[in-house]
Amino acid sequence: MFTERMEKLVALLEKSGLDGLVLNPGPCMVYLTGLHFHLMERPVVLLIEKKGSSVIVLPELERGKLTEGHARISAFSYGDDPATWSAAFMSAGKKIGLNQGRFGVEPTRLRFLELAFLKEALPGVDFVDGSAALEALRVRKDAGELEKMRRAALIAQEAMLHTLRSLQEGMTEKEIANELFINMLRAGSDVELPFPPIVAAGENSANPHAVPTDQVLKAGDLLLIDWGAGYEGYFSDITRTFTLGEVDQELIRIGEVVLEANRVGREAGKPGLDAGTVDRAARSVIDSAGYGKAFIHRTGHGLGMEAHEQPYIFSENDMLLVPGMTFTVEPGIYLEGKGGVRIEDDVVVTPDGLESLTDMPREVLPLENFMA
Amino acid sequence: MFTERMEKLVALLEKSGLDGLVLNPGPCMVYLTGLHFHLMERPVVLLIEKKGSSVIVLPELERGKLTEGHARISAFSYGDDPATWSAAFMSAGKKIGLNQGRFGVEPTRLRFLELAFLKEALPGVDFVDGSAALEALRVRKDAGELEKMRRAALIAQEAMLHTLRSLQEGMTEKEIANELFINMLRAGSDVELPFPPIVAAGENSANPHAVPTDQVLKAGDLLLIDWGAGYEGYFSDITRTFTLGEVDQELIRIGEVVLEANRVGREAGKPGLDAGTVDRAARSVIDSAGYGKAFIHRTGHGLGMEAHEQPYIFSENDMLLVPGMTFTVEPGIYLEGKGGVRIEDDVVVTPDGLESLTDMPREVLPLENFMA
Repeated sequence: MFTERMEKLVALLEKSGLDGLVLNPGPCMVYLTGLHFHLMERPVVLLIEKKGSSVIVLPELERGKLTEGHARISAFSYGDDPATWSAAFMSAGKKIGLNQGRFGVEPTRLRFLELAFLKEALPGVDFVDGSAALEALRVRKDAGELEKMRRAALIAQEAMLHTLRSLQEGMTEKEIANELFINMLRAGSDVELPFPPIVAAGENSANPHAVPTDQVLKAGDLLLIDWGAGYEGYFSDITRTFTLGEVDQELIRIGEVVLEANRVGREAGKPGLDAGTVDRAARSVIDSAGYGKAFIHRTGHGLGMEAHEQPYIFSENDMLLVPGMTFTVEPGIYLEGKGGVRIEDDVVVTPDGLESLTDMPREVLPLENFMA
Repeated sequence: MFTERMEKLVALLEKSGLDGLVLNPGPCMVYLTGLHFHLMERPVVLLIEKKGSSVIVLPELERGKLTEGHARISAFSYGDDPATWSAAFMSAGKKIGLNQGRFGVEPTRLRFLELAFLKEALPGVDFVDGSAALEALRVRKDAGELEKMRRAALIAQEAMLHTLRSLQEGMTEKEIANELFINMLRAGSDVELPFPPIVAAGENSANPHAVPTDQVLKAGDLLLIDWGAGYEGYFSDITRTFTLGEVDQELIRIGEVVLEANRVGREAGKPGLDAGTVDRAARSVIDSAGYGKAFIHRTGHGLGMEAHEQPYIFSENDMLLVPGMTFTVEPGIYLEGKGGVRIEDDVVVTPDGLESLTDMPREVLPLENFMA
């Protein structure tokens, strides 16, 4: 698997006019080599030269992670004293042995720390944004990856149904978020979630990036929950909104509009159309209902080994949809001081359109329907 | 609190010859402003000029996080289309209005993404490593911070005792790690842990950075658990090692040596000595017992809002210990193919020496003593 992916990468480098690539711990490194590192203060950098020779700089303590499958990667390690780090980078640079060229980097992964060492070790090389090559590498999911994403979706949904059964009026947002987290671990989620669950009750639901607080759930509230699980490094990301007791009629109305926008968005995409199409379709439903200004974010984002990745679903994105791409469809309406509704599904582009990986009831339903 | 910390920062900038500072989401930004961001694909950058004027570049969607307390920070926000990001940085640069100068950055936080925008927005400014000023800012914990670290330690210990009661032969490392995680959440931990728990049974305990596997716990095993909780953004980080059934005599022996090294390390530090003293003291115990080559990492690392921070406890570190510094003492001996022992406590430097924030029994004890 890794050999095949590495060959695909080398072709993409060629096409992008890059002589090599700089990878830091994260999804691309895992995708290409299976190597996981918990990133902290110590630099870890993998350099892949387009002719296939690779070097890695890493702490001595992590050297054991390199197995037979990594025989073609030359390792340069350093000890506990940061004064020894530079020498490891210099040796790695010598092994690469280039006095010029362009290496692509991951702009959201490479830090000032590693960049300074790289510039010292390869003074003739230009380090440039390598996103285009890297996004093309991972944007189409294969059958094995999709299977993991389906499992991540099932785990998240099972955990949510379990959590809803134990909900009670008077619980705090934090308590609900913790129960949901626990139920995801019990249902088989990886410990690494795409993000900590968002649980927002009442007025807090009008803030799309709310963080759970000590606010209690009470009758008349909307309850918005945005959560996801991880399965073997692949994520799900779902939002559902519920009511408790009798809620304001306008909140019911926006729930219906968002539900329709979610459906229209999920039906709008297909291969050959651009990513912006999905955003424009969902947005037009909300615009027509008079709530355009209250839909304050893009319709979605790519999903896979990262919680946010390409294709981003905003109006201006002209990236063409291709089978195997996976992303969220998550329109929302937010009324400050009253509440907000968001309904989010994960979809995969098929030859015919979009297929949803998530299938829990999407309607804004009473919590009473689920509570034990 | 934030005003006082900001004044301390400005003094440190002056001392470091810096004209300003670049902060990215993370502990320093939280420490100085209380602002939390979940970092993903979108750049968020706070620029603090030494005369006190500050600007922040952030997504429009996050603007609501700026409250009255942030009135002195000018905000420049951007929308969903990445093509709009550059303009926000350019406006922020214009507001700063410097054609020259040196701004310190956080080398483990600032990414290639943000650096490229900053260089475009402030072409005359040099961006340099600002670690020295920033480490001095956070390295001494105040009473409020220490109280949070004590709570994080108590939560971790309570969760561990609860987990040990439910342990059984035949459980997998992953199952034990998940139970421990769940028990930390139930005991009041933040959802954000310093790192996912390390649970290593049998031979796996010889790998200091082991990741939990499907390996089952069986009689004759050492069981090494390295875990920590979070409380209001502050971490604990503890390791204890246990036995199940009758284990090899050499493993019992290394347990005694590591226990002694832990004790000697915790008694070696005090204000005015350097951080390296603690490492050299603990290491000498292991060296004398003939296991020097099997102690393959530094004795510890600073701990606080980050799982690893200054002061790092390695032989060559000449940073002087000062009351309020907090770090781990975690000697270990690792015998490949047999097993490993590590015993880790969190300590704070007091006027007289080191005080341990963690107090669970440190000896390598039989799991049978704890199991229900």
